[in-house]
Amino acid sequence: MPVADSRQVLVEIRSVGVCGSDVHYYEHGRIGDFVVRSPLVLGHEASGVVIGLGSSASRHQPGQRVALEPGVPCRACRECTTGRYNLCRDIKFFATPPVDGALARYVVIHEDFAFPLPDGVSDDAGALCEPLSVGIWACRKAGVTLGSRVAVAGAGPIGAAVTLVARAAGATEVIVSDPVPARRARILEMGATATVDSTVSSLETEARDADQFIDCSGAPAAVADGIKCLRPAGVAVLVGMAPSSELAFPVASMQRNEILVTGTFRYANTYPEAIALVASGAIDLDSFVDARFPLESSEDALRASQRDPSILKPLVRVSGP
Amino acid sequence: MPVADSRQVLVEIRSVGVCGSDVHYYEHGRIGDFVVRSPLVLGHEASGVVIGLGSSASRHQPGQRVALEPGVPCRACRECTTGRYNLCRDIKFFATPPVDGALARYVVIHEDFAFPLPDGVSDDAGALCEPLSVGIWACRKAGVTLGSRVAVAGAGPIGAAVTLVARAAGATEVIVSDPVPARRARILEMGATATVDSTVSSLETEARDADQFIDCSGAPAAVADGIKCLRPAGVAVLVGMAPSSELAFPVASMQRNEILVTGTFRYANTYPEAIALVASGAIDLDSFVDARFPLESSEDALRASQRDPSILKPLVRVSGP
Amino acid sequence: MPVADSRQVLVEIRSVGVCGSDVHYYEHGRIGDFVVRSPLVLGHEASGVVIGLGSSASRHQPGQRVALEPGVPCRACRECTTGRYNLCRDIKFFATPPVDGALARYVVIHEDFAFPLPDGVSDDAGALCEPLSVGIWACRKAGVTLGSRVAVAGAGPIGAAVTLVARAAGATEVIVSDPVPARRARILEMGATATVDSTVSSLETEARDADQFIDCSGAPAAVADGIKCLRPAGVAVLVGMAPSSELAFPVASMQRNEILVTGTFRYANTYPEAIALVASGAIDLDSFVDARFPLESSEDALRASQRDPSILKPLVRVSGP
Amino acid sequence: MPVADSRQVLVEIRSVGVCGSDVHYYEHGRIGDFVVRSPLVLGHEASGVVIGLGSSASRHQPGQRVALEPGVPCRACRECTTGRYNLCRDIKFFATPPVDGALARYVVIHEDFAFPLPDGVSDDAGALCEPLSVGIWACRKAGVTLGSRVAVAGAGPIGAAVTLVARAAGATEVIVSDPVPARRARILEMGATATVDSTVSSLETEARDADQFIDCSGAPAAVADGIKCLRPAGVAVLVGMAPSSELAFPVASMQRNEILVTGTFRYANTYPEAIALVASGAIDLDSFVDARFPLESSEDALRASQRDPSILKPLVRVSGP
Repeated sequence: MPVADSRQVLVEIRSVGVCGSDVHYYEHGRIGDFVVRSPLVLGHEASGVVIGLGSSASRHQPGQRVALEPGVPCRACRECTTGRYNLCRDIKFFATPPVDGALARYVVIHEDFAFPLPDGVSDDAGALCEPLSVGIWACRKAGVTLGSRVAVAGAGPIGAAVTLVARAAGATEVIVSDPVPARRARILEMGATATVDSTVSSLETEARDADQFIDCSGAPAAVADGIKCLRPAGVAVLVGMAPSSELAFPVASMQRNEILVTGTFRYANTYPEAIALVASGAIDLDSFVDARFPLESSEDALRASQRDPSILKPLVRVSGP
Repeated sequence: MPVADSRQVLVEIRSVGVCGSDVHYYEHGRIGDFVVRSPLVLGHEASGVVIGLGSSASRHQPGQRVALEPGVPCRACRECTTGRYNLCRDIKFFATPPVDGALARYVVIHEDFAFPLPDGVSDDAGALCEPLSVGIWACRKAGVTLGSRVAVAGAGPIGAAVTLVARAAGATEVIVSDPVPARRARILEMGATATVDSTVSSLETEARDADQFIDCSGAPAAVADGIKCLRPAGVAVLVGMAPSSELAFPVASMQRNEILVTGTFRYANTYPEAIALVASGAIDLDSFVDARFPLESSEDALRASQRDPSILKPLVRVSGP
Repeated sequence: MPVADSRQVLVEIRSVGVCGSDVHYYEHGRIGDFVVRSPLVLGHEASGVVIGLGSSASRHQPGQRVALEPGVPCRACRECTTGRYNLCRDIKFFATPPVDGALARYVVIHEDFAFPLPDGVSDDAGALCEPLSVGIWACRKAGVTLGSRVAVAGAGPIGAAVTLVARAAGATEVIVSDPVPARRARILEMGATATVDSTVSSLETEARDADQFIDCSGAPAAVADGIKCLRPAGVAVLVGMAPSSELAFPVASMQRNEILVTGTFRYANTYPEAIALVASGAIDLDSFVDARFPLESSEDALRASQRDPSILKPLVRVSGP
Repeated sequence: MPVADSRQVLVEIRSVGVCGSDVHYYEHGRIGDFVVRSPLVLGHEASGVVIGLGSSASRHQPGQRVALEPGVPCRACRECTTGRYNLCRDIKFFATPPVDGALARYVVIHEDFAFPLPDGVSDDAGALCEPLSVGIWACRKAGVTLGSRVAVAGAGPIGAAVTLVARAAGATEVIVSDPVPARRARILEMGATATVDSTVSSLETEARDADQFIDCSGAPAAVADGIKCLRPAGVAVLVGMAPSSELAFPVASMQRNEILVTGTFRYANTYPEAIALVASGAIDLDSFVDARFPLESSEDALRASQRDPSILKPLVRVSGP
């Protein structure tokens, strides 16, 4: 069992969501420049219960249920002091080599990154505040707002999080493209207003004049397609990871229409908002979960989405009722 | 019957909402520097049906139902070319002396300011896109967004519009103060998450650490109170008109907390968004209307809210089914 | 001689700058989708003197010297009413087929787009408010501000305008890459703080951690290079036109660092600022001009920069002292 | 001599500027809610030389000259993690009770707040990066940019810092009001483009249509006057402290013109920019200093500006060449 140092708290893990990056590390041992060189505990979507406090920790009482924000930045560099700590070069992030993750019975974490969960928010929802944060950050970067018409590529868990967040932010249209029928059907239930079968059509024709395009697919064709569907001065946010480090962009169209393109890397300052959205009922994260596994079956959890593409979010229940 | 000039359209009016400013002109003959010097047709919240086109008008077919944006700006000055045409000095605005309003059987208006209404949006809702625009503009200026905690002073029609818009924009808390019990009860039904009886308590104590404060009361005490309830770097937007042209602000607190205070004057570029929000079901404007009058009883409509403070929005039905 | 209609003014042209796009139309007869199908007057960087007024024009007195903003937008579409009229689909822009340009003795233009020149601003400087506007717009989009470290690719006239504007906006470092020694030497005199010989080095190594990158070269290698030199959350603005409509972007790096990339298309609301900067002495446009030609030698002017790459801006003097 | 703890450094002080707040504490023993309850070392505008390192400090070599940012925030609260650490409730700020200041031979400070000074930046200029930061922050909040027309009330040291910064940021007009002729004359030399004698005229008439108004006077009449001189959608930033905690604002005008009013409290993330501006020659801080005193004569330094209002910035030279 790890020991909580100074301002850390010891947390008994309850729920851990399985993310595509966990699966990727598990299968390939690396993601881009991040290489697994020694055994690594996976898992960075986690909730639990505080059961111990470091000597200087004072923000929690033992027994407090918490959602864990998985990255602890240095707090001193320019990125940290200007409010974009997700870009801190020295951030320690769960399950990113060489930092162990949360797919374990117990973890320690700085108390400031353990966010109390209100009674109405389940352990599972607490864990899923992490992918929800990815969606919040993408929508914030994209400027999704009241009356937005949003094009989304990819109906996986991140596409789903983006869809939920966009609707909660007042988007009146969310048009999602995906090649898998089951995923398209599911995302319509979750709030998408229309879907596009990307094997036969495209966002460029089906989501013309969108205010925002958010890529959650990483598919090169989808990115070019999405950028072209935007209205003048529209915004494209690339969340999905492309298969290669370079990608062809429709630059003439970007210039002619002054399209703004950016990418996201995790998120910053999203947890209070994520928890408030779930607690208020604006976003339902429990409906996200469609397969639960005990800790001993973590390997099955890691493989669940590949075995059955209709599974949106497998979750490992480590402890709790 | 007026004649549609060049790019104007002739509109048969269907519904006209009664606004506090109409009542004020009716009773006092002036609002600040705007003085009624000759008979003035009131009404600026209006919908209708296009029944005639000027020689160069081409955006509508006769029979098209439309919401009327009541102000037509010059389109040439700095305010117009930079996107804030509501501040144009030469704007012609319905029912602002000497420009006649829409409480009439027929009006003409530039075709660009007659917005087509989809089938699902009623004539009444079309008229109420005007106060909805006031709410959209206030929330936009205030930066109300996902997870916002919003304090609102005043539960009249503008406070109600702000509340509806704030919730649609993802605010998880909207705390509204008002002295009238019936109005507090009504706004809770419309989406406020809490109310404050301003005769016995205050936003400063009941809405501490709000992200935004939007004043829809014009009451000097409410404004000072609301500014003080804000978190550091919070935003106050003053929509209600104060009884005098000067007001005491808590300047030391504004500086210590870098509070941002601004006022609104009408709105710009809100109609497409307003109509989309109503059409998508995100906002229900029909529930707003609680008293309808024929054109002949316009005077009763103007007096309705004063006779019965529980009436949120009296509406004159000029024509239509 | 053209006739000033309604709110137009008749202008006797004084100075016309030659732009790369003029040269491109002259040689290739097209730029992307804009194709010259009938004889076209070139020239869109122009100043002159008002010598006649349309029936409703009232903003000028005959004899007033003016700079001409060459694009007149529709003023009614969403782009126009939201302050980005440069993206208006119906804009009429000098020397963009089928609209004739200003390389002529007389032109007519809407009075709102003829900006009075103060006494201290020369006719030549008035004409060059157009490329200066391109630089202002690029720096505005990029967010160049006090203390900025700016990387610029290309030391031609647009790179020079960007450099002047960036320094005037408080940038403390402006690092410009270009393959031509004479152009690098010239831009150092104009305010660049360092130059990079792009044949032997790169911005990625010589301008590491730049806050902004502004491409004025259109060279694919320079764009990728410039994006990589940016600090986390840095901004890249692409002004130069690439040789093809697609370009490979370093997408992994853009995501990891949340780089923001956008392009520019002309400019909006820059002329008052451009004239104020020249009139105040903050920017010296006369030093820009290094070759003058009479109207009869316009063809020589069009070929001047190609014959001698050290010529930054050839200018045609149509009339005046 | 204090001892540098952990990540602190021990600094031998070189120069300390005297600020109005030092004088106020010296004479009144309090500023608003901040009350001096035990002996307090004054001084928060300081530079020095690092002569010792705490056990974990690694950013400096002994002998490094540094400017000291005087406030060290908690780095954990919402204000800190969102980039506005100046609003941190737990900030420890030099010479703000009960934290001692820098008017001493030696101080300790967290290494991250000791900014290395390049050779070209003097010790005095290093100390004055503090009031320069106040000016940078005010201009940043106000949005002063290329071509801005800026109205400033007060030609004291903060008004002077604002003027220098505004010009460096591209403002083409800076109009400063002050009742003292010597101060008006001095600020014209420092870059103001016009001055207003506030005993006989006002910014409302002399700076009409300003883009920004920055109050550095704290005078109630000046604040109301400055807000009224703004163009529609103009911005007012209140830096000077008013004599009372409430102030009458022209609210009707603020609403009609959608004026934005805010206050500043110190600054955040300004030191790198301040040093870059001085090092690049864009801003000359040495010309600011017009009276130097040895540490033993600190009391004279504190009284200097009151004895002679033409003295802009008295400075205590504690050590150094």
